[in-house]
Amino acid sequence: MEKEIIITEVALRDGSHAIGHQYTVDQVATIAKALNEAKVPYIEVTHGDGLGGSSLQYGFSKTDEMKLIEAAVSVVDFSKLAVLLLPGIGTIENLKEASKIGVKMARIATHVTEADISKQHIETAKNLGMETVGFLMMSHMAPVEKLVEQAKLMESYGADTVYIVDSAGALLPNEVRERVKALKNELAINIGFHAHNNLSLAMGNTLAAIEEGATRIDGSIRCLGAGAGNTQTEVLIAVLERMGIKTGIDLYKLMDVSEDIVSKILLEPQIINRDSLTLGYAGVYSSFLLHAKRAAQRFGVDSRDILMELGKRKVVGGQEDMIVDVAAELSKEKITIG
Amino acid sequence: MEKEIIITEVALRDGSHAIGHQYTVDQVATIAKALNEAKVPYIEVTHGDGLGGSSLQYGFSKTDEMKLIEAAVSVVDFSKLAVLLLPGIGTIENLKEASKIGVKMARIATHVTEADISKQHIETAKNLGMETVGFLMMSHMAPVEKLVEQAKLMESYGADTVYIVDSAGALLPNEVRERVKALKNELAINIGFHAHNNLSLAMGNTLAAIEEGATRIDGSIRCLGAGAGNTQTEVLIAVLERMGIKTGIDLYKLMDVSEDIVSKILLEPQIINRDSLTLGYAGVYSSFLLHAKRAAQRFGVDSRDILMELGKRKVVGGQEDMIVDVAAELSKEKITIG
Repeated sequence: MEKEIIITEVALRDGSHAIGHQYTVDQVATIAKALNEAKVPYIEVTHGDGLGGSSLQYGFSKTDEMKLIEAAVSVVDFSKLAVLLLPGIGTIENLKEASKIGVKMARIATHVTEADISKQHIETAKNLGMETVGFLMMSHMAPVEKLVEQAKLMESYGADTVYIVDSAGALLPNEVRERVKALKNELAINIGFHAHNNLSLAMGNTLAAIEEGATRIDGSIRCLGAGAGNTQTEVLIAVLERMGIKTGIDLYKLMDVSEDIVSKILLEPQIINRDSLTLGYAGVYSSFLLHAKRAAQRFGVDSRDILMELGKRKVVGGQEDMIVDVAAELSKEKITIG
Repeated sequence: MEKEIIITEVALRDGSHAIGHQYTVDQVATIAKALNEAKVPYIEVTHGDGLGGSSLQYGFSKTDEMKLIEAAVSVVDFSKLAVLLLPGIGTIENLKEASKIGVKMARIATHVTEADISKQHIETAKNLGMETVGFLMMSHMAPVEKLVEQAKLMESYGADTVYIVDSAGALLPNEVRERVKALKNELAINIGFHAHNNLSLAMGNTLAAIEEGATRIDGSIRCLGAGAGNTQTEVLIAVLERMGIKTGIDLYKLMDVSEDIVSKILLEPQIINRDSLTLGYAGVYSSFLLHAKRAAQRFGVDSRDILMELGKRKVVGGQEDMIVDVAAELSKEKITIG
């Protein structure tokens, strides 16, 4: 049987982080139209933190995301629209509204150990006739058995696909392999993989995931995503063509969209700098970065040591007060050693 | 036994391509000093096309490379200096001069099928007391058996190490695996790997090479190399630390050198754009790119189709006249089909 990989393009969602949630209706319509012409099967459009993400805490969107989604829906006749929703940030009402506008896929995202909060949203999306995806974020933070347990929960709620999401870009190829293999063994639904390039392994990890049986893959054109960006979509299509794997996407067209359209809206090119590398190396939330830098200055320690320690302790979002504690401890150790 | 990987930093050689061979004595001294402090074992300093590369054909260097090498030698007390030499471009005299200045490693580079022209240079370098490396460029263009045969030649000339060099950034992880595995089986000397990131696989391929037994790895800090750059050194060190593999290099120091020094001299950030992706996808020499674009315009075809055809025909440097032939043929086909 010939292998086929189904791509979801996330530059209009994950890329929203990289441009400070400043997408305009015109930009989204232009890019969605071009992606549609290149035969990209799914296009995700939402605030970087999903439906309802526009807020003081997560950053205000320049444009109401429903207007952006409407703009994308209005220009596609091949591609299907997807939205991301994090229960607690987005609501059932947001989901209904998106469905009404014409969104065909709902991706319900939770921390890798909190799949149980996705039940109501996955079920609602199913009832609305949408394709449903369970999206397990920060997958590197849970042991394989825990990941399997959580993925099974999402499967039991009716998810058509479950994604291993490497939010911090912290996974190594072998770690991706064992995770995909375990899910393939234990689940009957599609397995997906979403990478970040903080350790320069987005493409290597994606190929490892595909080899082990993942068939749903996220990419961002021109690497337009949080941190160092995601698996670069047009590069992935070239690599898959070299491997004889079909995606149905027009490679040259996609390369041109990247070069002639998307590259123009980037605030700066997506590279691996000190910050994104630190996130991948420590395996922590990007929102910790600024807090750690402030605490580092206050306590006279290296912000990277703080982040590494937070990574070791598996600190999660909402525990930001731990950052100052860790900085103070490191500072004390330093004095003792000194 | 604990694994140890020996890194050669190539930003002051391969990176010379990326900045149009405009390195100054001051830049080279500053970077080499910082790399030395970070305990990088080998630093390669030469024109992008090796000793003697400064020319109309390959691009003139701003500064005499021997002055750059001298500057680097004068600031290191830990790192050893390496030079690249392509027989036919560089000479035995260049090699002797470099050795006299204090260079400790000679890397003799040939096309993957032309190892026999390295004999005299490897032997001379040996006699000068230098560590010697055979550097098989465009390794994707030869079948595995041919690569093994050519590597054995270099071994027989006295090379201490032979490198698989993915000059076009065209190899896939499995192709790297089978090549390293074959060399490990057939050779007694060290195996090295030099990647380019044109298909976003520099890091993935490098890990595959290490898994199969490569112990000498090239990296370029901040990705400063030809095309989309090489395996990003500071990211590689972070990844290897995560894997428990030693390099002796100070990660934080290297991250700071990348961010605070090297990023400032880049003409533009090293990303994967339409051109570098095309080179990796087609697997052709970067020098073909401009010729192909000109021919494409003249014959009204897509330059990517020309480059793909050149890749299929395994055209090598010196056969640039083929480019117009291919363009003319593609144009004729187009008319016939149309």
